[in-house]
Amino acid sequence: MSDPLATATLSRLREHMDRTPFDWLVLGSRENVGYVTGYRSVAGDIFPTHQMVAIVSQTDVILVAPAADVGAAGEHLALDYIEPFGTFFFETAHQDQLNPTIARRHENLAGAFSSAIRRFGVAGRVGVDGGLDEPAALAAQVPGLRFESVGQWMQTVRSVKLKAEVDRLAEAARLADEGIQAALATASSGVSERDLAAVVGTTMAAGGGTPRFIVVTSGERSALSDAHPTSRLWQKGELLRFDVGCTYDGYWSDLGRTAVLGEPSDLQVRRYEAIKAGEDAQLRIAAPGVLASTLFATAVESVEDAGLRPYRRHHCGHGIGREVYEPPIVSPGTELPLQSGMVLCFETPFYEIGWGGMMVEDTVVITADGNQRLNHSDRSLRVVDG
Amino acid sequence: MSDPLATATLSRLREHMDRTPFDWLVLGSRENVGYVTGYRSVAGDIFPTHQMVAIVSQTDVILVAPAADVGAAGEHLALDYIEPFGTFFFETAHQDQLNPTIARRHENLAGAFSSAIRRFGVAGRVGVDGGLDEPAALAAQVPGLRFESVGQWMQTVRSVKLKAEVDRLAEAARLADEGIQAALATASSGVSERDLAAVVGTTMAAGGGTPRFIVVTSGERSALSDAHPTSRLWQKGELLRFDVGCTYDGYWSDLGRTAVLGEPSDLQVRRYEAIKAGEDAQLRIAAPGVLASTLFATAVESVEDAGLRPYRRHHCGHGIGREVYEPPIVSPGTELPLQSGMVLCFETPFYEIGWGGMMVEDTVVITADGNQRLNHSDRSLRVVDG
Repeated sequence: MSDPLATATLSRLREHMDRTPFDWLVLGSRENVGYVTGYRSVAGDIFPTHQMVAIVSQTDVILVAPAADVGAAGEHLALDYIEPFGTFFFETAHQDQLNPTIARRHENLAGAFSSAIRRFGVAGRVGVDGGLDEPAALAAQVPGLRFESVGQWMQTVRSVKLKAEVDRLAEAARLADEGIQAALATASSGVSERDLAAVVGTTMAAGGGTPRFIVVTSGERSALSDAHPTSRLWQKGELLRFDVGCTYDGYWSDLGRTAVLGEPSDLQVRRYEAIKAGEDAQLRIAAPGVLASTLFATAVESVEDAGLRPYRRHHCGHGIGREVYEPPIVSPGTELPLQSGMVLCFETPFYEIGWGGMMVEDTVVITADGNQRLNHSDRSLRVVDG
Repeated sequence: MSDPLATATLSRLREHMDRTPFDWLVLGSRENVGYVTGYRSVAGDIFPTHQMVAIVSQTDVILVAPAADVGAAGEHLALDYIEPFGTFFFETAHQDQLNPTIARRHENLAGAFSSAIRRFGVAGRVGVDGGLDEPAALAAQVPGLRFESVGQWMQTVRSVKLKAEVDRLAEAARLADEGIQAALATASSGVSERDLAAVVGTTMAAGGGTPRFIVVTSGERSALSDAHPTSRLWQKGELLRFDVGCTYDGYWSDLGRTAVLGEPSDLQVRRYEAIKAGEDAQLRIAAPGVLASTLFATAVESVEDAGLRPYRRHHCGHGIGREVYEPPIVSPGTELPLQSGMVLCFETPFYEIGWGGMMVEDTVVITADGNQRLNHSDRSLRVVDG
């Protein structure tokens, strides 16, 4: 494997595996497969039923994948370690090159999986994540195999990011941040939500990001939480709320900003200062050892102390990585201490139907003695000349 | 409902419902929910576990949705027809406005579903698509309810597009086509796959599209079927293969083109002429009444007659709409006659590991007496000055 990121994440996983009773892991979630093999399937992102399985030990990584994926996955794993299923035709200039793969082709995932675990001698207690449609049915293919859940454990392993992962998350955050700044720079009276969303998406794509969600909502629509942009025009005195994210090399961003066209009202200013006080408090205290639930409580208290009361939220942030929401979720129930290397989004949105919505959301990496923001734009209520 | 597209698709569905034994449909696939309600959830596109259910009769449409979706879904359905579940907080400027919704909030989808079908008197034989995780468990919530599968029937209804749908598919195709043309216009020796992909994505986003997959592969990588672009530089004499798609207002595109940097080799020209002959034949014969399987056989024969033999493919095209692959699939087993209003992608790709890959893929709408292309760029092997 020549992919430095995948080499690093796989060896991180293997260090953790050493402290479990499992010699083998069977991983079916898209993100876990990418973590151990480095291979991200294009088809996996567009077909909800697309399924691959990675089988991992201290020495081997085997990928069970649709035959159509063999070409691209072959850049990450030796063909002998790919077990294909289904129908797809690659011809070969050098006839011996793909023959082993074609000879091993199976009708479906269960057949290919069964073949792979026999071929590599997978046995005994096997850790399996929650990403398989039918883990029990797969296990039944091989007598003596015992599957035990490691879905949460995998999330814990992945929650502490390597430097190469933080770099990608920072780049994804930078592109989202730049997208918002570019939109604000072109915004003026009568611009539509769609027009601004196009600027955000264009900025992300130009920088090599893949736009994933672009919520640009104005006026009363800003209260709608997640909503697609429309042709609605931004009017003087109205709020405009951005909540946008892209992926860069498979790693997500998720950022929020709020603006007003022309002079903001007293209520807009007061409410924004309150939600910003909540995020300020999170940025101030986030450090190794602090519980996610404490971060949540502190955020809510700070918003309320600043005058927006009651402030009702189910979470005030979340981990981010190969998934847009990863543990830890910054919520009342999460008694999990932060660790150096975790990357989190902090957010304190407020939605009032009939009035509007506002948010400020930023991404930080937890460091040895605190945290560091991965995006750097102005966090205040932005005022655009009307 | 003020959304003209949703009004049209819903009334199309109701015409078809009249000819079934079902008074009620229960639809869980993301695309079916969008078809009947007009509401597309932002969260639904980014969280694989996101689930909504639409319940439809000749007079009512009810949406069972996460509480976080209520704000945005409320632009498409009256709040009284939305049954929310889970935790999310919207405040309200006018206290009576959202209260009914909050009062009806349920812990999970099963609870909200059960409440909705009691409230609206859903009973008897109910058609259900395949998009529900646990239809049996849901049905068990209400004694006397009998679920029968209408998944394929829904696909058949959706396969014939309304004018408003064709317009969106044409716009999505136009943006993908323009993206490829823009990339080719900037391409020259030493440009990277990533650079060209950024041009494609930027063009899509600038026009209001959401980039969904951008395969730009050069040299031997062009043989890899679906693969992410890399920093590999395009070299003189090499193939470059585009396979790209975006969504516009929820409707997909999927187009392919092939180029060579500098003078193409005889083999490149001959093979491209052969695959193009296959697509030419499809464009020539596609018309109402022609079987999808005939389209497939004709494509393969034409490629082989033009000198690329054997030409091995599992399909040579597919329907496209709210999903990138929809019935009919242009494959040997599909004994389905084309109908006026169907929109299909035709494609005849060829992949040879160690040599390269090429494709030409276009989108057509079937008309009363033939078909019409929705994208219009030059279909020949494109030569870029090296």
